[in-house]
Parts: sequence; structure tokens; C-alpha cells
Amino acid sequence: MSIDVATLLDRAREGDPRAVARLISLVENGAPQLREILAALSAYAGSAYLVGLTGSPGVGKSTTTNALVSEYRARGRRVGVLAVDPSSPFSGGALLGDRVRMQDHATDPDVFIRSMASRGHLGGLAAATPQAARVLEAAGCEVVLIETVGVGQSEIEVASAADTTVVLLAPGMGDGIQAAKAGILEIGDVYVVNKADRDGAESTARELNHMLALGERRNPGDWRQPIVKTVAARGEGVVEVVEALEKHRAYLAETGRLQARRLARAAAEIEAIALGVLRTRYGSVHGSDDTPLRRLAERVSAGELDPFTAADELLA
Amino acid sequence: MSIDVATLLDRAREGDPRAVARLISLVENGAPQLREILAALSAYAGSAYLVGLTGSPGVGKSTTTNALVSEYRARGRRVGVLAVDPSSPFSGGALLGDRVRMQDHATDPDVFIRSMASRGHLGGLAAATPQAARVLEAAGCEVVLIETVGVGQSEIEVASAADTTVVLLAPGMGDGIQAAKAGILEIGDVYVVNKADRDGAESTARELNHMLALGERRNPGDWRQPIVKTVAARGEGVVEVVEALEKHRAYLAETGRLQARRLARAAAEIEAIALGVLRTRYGSVHGSDDTPLRRLAERVSAGELDPFTAADELLA
Repeated sequence: MSIDVATLLDRAREGDPRAVARLISLVENGAPQLREILAALSAYAGSAYLVGLTGSPGVGKSTTTNALVSEYRARGRRVGVLAVDPSSPFSGGALLGDRVRMQDHATDPDVFIRSMASRGHLGGLAAATPQAARVLEAAGCEVVLIETVGVGQSEIEVASAADTTVVLLAPGMGDGIQAAKAGILEIGDVYVVNKADRDGAESTARELNHMLALGERRNPGDWRQPIVKTVAARGEGVVEVVEALEKHRAYLAETGRLQARRLARAAAEIEAIALGVLRTRYGSVHGSDDTPLRRLAERVSAGELDPFTAADELLA
Repeated sequence: MSIDVATLLDRAREGDPRAVARLISLVENGAPQLREILAALSAYAGSAYLVGLTGSPGVGKSTTTNALVSEYRARGRRVGVLAVDPSSPFSGGALLGDRVRMQDHATDPDVFIRSMASRGHLGGLAAATPQAARVLEAAGCEVVLIETVGVGQSEIEVASAADTTVVLLAPGMGDGIQAAKAGILEIGDVYVVNKADRDGAESTARELNHMLALGERRNPGDWRQPIVKTVAARGEGVVEVVEALEKHRAYLAETGRLQARRLARAAAEIEAIALGVLRTRYGSVHGSDDTPLRRLAERVSAGELDPFTAADELLA
């Protein structure tokens, strides 16, 4: 079946969920039409507000995402959700339990929900996620929520893929210490202590507040990360989360940081694609193909060549 | 002061600790002599066995490293230690408490210990660590222990920087679940349950064993990751750890996997250097310099250009 990118994009612009899904599949799978699709999408660049949500398993990310979708819909916004599934080669994702399926929004024509596989990218954000966000942006989504499981690297990736990053915690999970270990204190713009009706919510918020204060190297006018307490399953505190997000977005826009973040994101995307292009030229060392990279790696490994000279030869 | 690389290297070969320290500082700081040093080091490539040690704060990594050094010294080996300090921009590393200083080996001329800063590399292994390992290798170290704090990405980096990766756990830290979350079950060649005299050591080992079994997709002859119980502070179980390491090294050598791992490592190093070379050509988007990358990122960010075309222009 031939695929007419222009027709698909027209349908996606009209809000046809099958066209949106199709386009995301094409970018996710690195289809031959990828370049054509991205060229067509670029006209809509920057129209959506990208919000990353991260946190350890069990803090209620999906429930919170679901509640945020409801609140944004109540405000009349078209919303996209990208849920990055950890498809660990070890667990197949099964260790993380079942994802809330966001059935609440299954029939809403102004909500697009998509699971992304994070295959081939250890624990991380699916490589195609920024491109899938571009599809949702072109489909008229004013807000795109990117939900990932929070383990190390993926948190950093969420922070660099989003305009605003929300870090979720829950009481009684030792999350304060976890947070410090995992470096999430460096990436959150808005913190949410979910399950705030449980014992320990106050102390989790207090500990977090203390740790954020410890980390302050703030100049006057810098963003003060808010800590919002929620019971997402009952929708409590969700209005406050959306308000904190709107405030952060306004802050980013006023200070020119929105543009700076998006510039950094575009640069990272360009670099990643350039690296991919180079890799197709010089090949891989995995497998047994006799590629240029393999030949150089063999010589470095054998002590016949130093890695700098090898790098020069690789680029020559 | 002019630095004669050949003289420094000669002295390092003779075991002069100041020459070793100087060379590591030069590679760590990306000194102008970096290329010359690496070219001179490449003659010794592959002579050292690289062991990575990772695990959450508090499991006793430094104590275990210290005990492993003693055991390798008892076997007459010259040993290098690279301790990668997390110099988080947030904490300055202070959250992790004081490092055991390995005073036991301070005066041993056949032990080289070096702290590496992980600056500029969020939570991760210092970029210069593989190159510092090459210095220790040239200085005649037969074993190089690379100790890093285990948070997400750095674990994966340890696994790719080492011949054999040791993952440490301790009872009562919820490490079983942590392990699964952080993906460390995918990277360990040898597992150590340290502080095995504490309550819960048995159940930690059992839980770990269960999780490793769950993850098995093993072919006949594949490596079966051993779980060794230790009380590193008293040296208990350390002989068994070294024996497990020797066994794994023999396994890697016999199956050709040592060569494959080293090939992958060399390739990663070449690629990283090549990327660095490219970056000096096309610049950064950080700061306000008008670099080629910045100009392209601005156009992508403004929707005037798609990222693929930008990548093509970057490489042109």
C-alpha cells in the first residue's frame, strides 16, 4: 500500500486519530517516508507545550497524567499523551505492572494517547518520542504530556525533551533519598507529591523542600520549583498542578528560556540525526560485518592505532 | 613548564606514582598533549583486566574495592583504582558522605589510586575514565578497578567501560526492587551481597537469584552470574569474589567475548572522540556564540527547516 504523506497529514490536521496513529508509527519505525514527514511537520514546530512527567514506578504517573488530561480538556485544550513503555530486554516491562489505560478519554476526539516503545535504548525515552510529539503538535495538540518511568537516564532525557518537567513522588517510598541519588532534583520544574492522603506525605514534601533548598544557587528572578500535593485518583490538587505548569510556561516565555530550551532541543535532535547518518556510513562493530568502524576498532583494540587517529580516519 | 610526554611515560612505566598522576591529570583535563599521550599509550592496549564496580550508595563499594586491592596484592598483582566521584552540580557530592580513603594501600608502590571527577557528565562515569585506565595499564597495572556510584546511566557506562562488571547490593535497602528498576540486572557479570552478616542478607540474595532466574534467556554454555556474599569490612568472601572474577575473565577469553567487549569499547571511544571533533567544528548552542549548530537549531526551532535537512547541512 502506498502512503501519501500529504494526505495523511491533512487528515491528521483534521483530527483523524487513525492518521495521527499512522504517522506516529511511520516515524517510530523509521519508515522511508521519515524525512518527508518531518519536512512536512516542521511548519507546525513550536505550537505545542511539551510537559514531561517522570517518577519511580508506583508514584501514580499514569493516574496523574489521566487527571491532567481531564483538567486540560476542561479548559478546552486538545491534548496528546506519549507514554514511553520500558521495554527492557530483561523484564519485557512486566515488572512495572499494568498501565492505567486512560479509558476516561478513549472516546474523546480531542485526546490522542500513544504508547511508545523504548526499544534499543536502555531504560530510556524512545528515540522517536520528539518526532512523535511533532506529529501531535501538527494534529493541533496544544499540550503534549510525555510520561516516562523515572530511572536515571530517562529522567534526564525527559527534561531535555520537554518544555517543563514534572517530577512525581509519593510518600513512604524513600523517595527523598532516591531523588537525590537519581539526580531528579536537578531536572524538575514542578514537583508533585501524589497520594497525599497517605501517611508520610507531609514529611516527603518537607524533605523534598529541604533538599531543593540545599541545592539552591538561585539568582533573583529565578524559578522557584513549587511542590504540589495531589490525590490524582480523586482529582485533588490537579488544578494546582496545571496552574503551576501555566506559571512555569509563562516564566519560560518571559525570560527567553523557552526559546533557549527549544533551541537546545533542536540542536540535540539535529546532532542525534547527524550521528545516525554517520553511523550508516561507517557501520557498527556489532555483528560480524567488516565495516570501517570495525576495522578501526580492531586496530585500536590491538594497540596498532590510538583512538584519536582512528577518529580522524573515521571522519575522513 | 614544558612536559615531555616520553619522559613522563618512561617514569610511569617504572612505577613512579607522580608520573602516573601527572599523565592522568593531563588526559583528564584534555591537555594539548592528549593525542600524543594516547598515541604513546596505545602500545600497551589490552594488557590490563578492567573490573567495574557499581551499586547504590551505602552498599560498601569503597570498602569492597579496598578489600579487592588487598586480595589482588596478596596474589602479587599491580593494581589500579579509578574512583569516579559524583560531582553533581547539585550536591557537589556531599550527599554521598565520605569516601573510604583506602589508607591501607597508601604506601604500597604497586597500588595506584585515583579519584576521577565526573564533571559535565550528569551522574555518569567521567569521560576521561577509559583514558585514565590506559595510563594505569601502561604503568603496568594488571588489574584496574573502576568504582562508580550506581545511578542509572553510570551503571550502563561502567558495564561498557569494563571487561567484567560487579554489581554490589546490601541487605535491607530494598535493593532487589531497586535493581530491577535501575536495570542493573542486565549489566552484572558478578553479584556481591555485601554486609552479609546483617539481617536480610539471605533474603536479598534469594530475591536477587530469583530475579536473575526470571531474566534468563540463556543458551547452553552462557555465563551464569554468581552471587557472592561478603563482609568486605572484615575481608570475608573477598577471595571468592576474586575467584569469580578470574572465572569470568577466563570465560570471556575462551568464548571470544573479551575481544568482542573490547572491540565495542574501542568503537565507543572512537565514536565519542569523533563526535567531540565534530563539535569543535560546528560549535554549541549553549552560550550566545553564532555557531553553525546554533544557526541550524534556530531554523529548526522556528519551523523553517526540518531536522534531517539540518543534519545534512551540519555534516556537509
